Amino acid sequence: MSATGTLHGVGVGPGDPELLTLRAARLIGAADVVAYLAPAGGDSFARAIARAHIRPDAEELRIEVPMAVERHPAQGVYDAAAARIARRLDAGRDVVMLCEGDPFFYGSFMYVHARLAPHHRVQVTPGVSSLGACAAALGRPLTARNDVLTVIPGPLPDDEMRRRIEGAEAVAIMKVGRHFARIRALLGSMGLADRAGYVERASLPVQRAVPLAQAPEQAPYFSMILIYKGNDPWLT
Amino acid sequence: MSATGTLHGVGVGPGDPELLTLRAARLIGAADVVAYLAPAGGDSFARAIARAHIRPDAEELRIEVPMAVERHPAQGVYDAAAARIARRLDAGRDVVMLCEGDPFFYGSFMYVHARLAPHHRVQVTPGVSSLGACAAALGRPLTARNDVLTVIPGPLPDDEMRRRIEGAEAVAIMKVGRHFARIRALLGSMGLADRAGYVERASLPVQRAVPLAQAPEQAPYFSMILIYKGNDPWLT
Ligand SMILES: C[S@@+](CC[C@H](N)C(=O)[O-])C[C@H]1O[C@@H](n2cnc3c(N)ncnc32)[C@H](O)[C@@H]1O
Ligand SMILES: C[S@@+](CC[C@H](N)C(=O)[O-])C[C@H]1O[C@@H](n2cnc3c(N)ncnc32)[C@H](O)[C@@H]1O
Repeated sequence: MSATGTLHGVGVGPGDPELLTLRAARLIGAADVVAYLAPAGGDSFARAIARAHIRPDAEELRIEVPMAVERHPAQGVYDAAAARIARRLDAGRDVVMLCEGDPFFYGSFMYVHARLAPHHRVQVTPGVSSLGACAAALGRPLTARNDVLTVIPGPLPDDEMRRRIEGAEAVAIMKVGRHFARIRALLGSMGLADRAGYVERASLPVQRAVPLAQAPEQAPYFSMILIYKGNDPWLT
Repeated sequence: MSATGTLHGVGVGPGDPELLTLRAARLIGAADVVAYLAPAGGDSFARAIARAHIRPDAEELRIEVPMAVERHPAQGVYDAAAARIARRLDAGRDVVMLCEGDPFFYGSFMYVHARLAPHHRVQVTPGVSSLGACAAALGRPLTARNDVLTVIPGPLPDDEMRRRIEGAEAVAIMKVGRHFARIRALLGSMGLADRAGYVERASLPVQRAVPLAQAPEQAPYFSMILIYKGNDPWLT
């Protein structure tokens, strides 16, 4: 730990700018350097959520990541990003990194965190995750009482996904996107289609939250499936 | 759906009043009726978190719940609470119900929701859950990439808890409280003590976040154990 600036990993919530926390709004509004990930050539979702709070004179560090980052994390990209951020920290400046949802819930922030935390001060501001936002969109509890909740990434192969779902009462499937048709078929074959809800772009004006049977053919990256298998009458 | 008031289930986050969302602050600040649960004879944690935003002239509906509510949900208490809230809604008034963390993540709000949602307009404002707050406190990601995250309630019996933990890469054990000694022993016997972190009262000034080996003898109700079993170098 050297006497340098602090890196803040700041959760900005699932999409609605009003789901920023007061703390996130304060940190972003005070930030002299703001960093965020963006798909190559595209807009940063985290920046769009936080935009109203970013100072016009803030330095912005846009970190471009290749699209297929899920499968082949672009470690070189994160090395370079960490180096850019570290230069500001070493100059005594604080850096606020904007993170969709909660930074430590499947967030790419972890790659920057892992590189910088050993030698710099890092603080994380938790945010509203897509999990709670999707349950709110469906108007249905995620999980109750002493039920186990299992969160499953969509890229998992069928046999493994099936086994994980079998062992849980409540299930959230993340990163559905291009795996959607396969997952929907799997849930159908497991007799769970009736118990599943589909949510895309939770908390945004274009949000869609419907029973899985009414979901569209294609799902965007920002979509999730929630399943409740238990017997709690309050959940169904 | 009748033309009455709206019940808002509003997540107030894990404890730090700054972890309220902008939306929660707005809804609470505008509320004419504010409801919350409180242990019999004790203070409401949710109210304490939101206090600065409650209007002095707001009507407050304090809903007292017996302590052992985890095991024997006090259905009569929730029937009565729902009836009190329904009277305000039927009179055309909106009611804001304050909920610790996220309302639909193991929250008691579900009992009120289940009773009122069939006949009244209910909207849920997601909040920062204790899951993200505990990971932030430990300075460690909850889960990464394509790892499965399993959330387990502490009251589960040993054999079942063991089985659930065996099938996951990342684990959060909630509602640790009086089950703490038993759970710690179980994790020791599974060789996982080194991979576990203990957090109590995350985000509050009295927060404690330590490796499980350094945890105190007794754990309060507001405590959690996070375990990472996978091999991701970024998580350890
Ligand atoms: C890499 S993870 C990041 C999760 C984020 N850190 C969080 O706390 O929500 C991306 C996945 O989160 C889910 N997600 C994020 N925002 C969402 C939204 N607004 N609506 C639905 N799903 C969302 C989708 O499953 C998406 O594939
Ligand atoms: C009935 S659950 C409610 C969870 C809440 N709805 C949420 O979203 O965090 C209560 C459990 O949440 C966890 N919890 C809530 N707040 C916490 C905090 N500030 N620090 C640690 N654990 C907390 C504890 O495991 C506690 O036993």
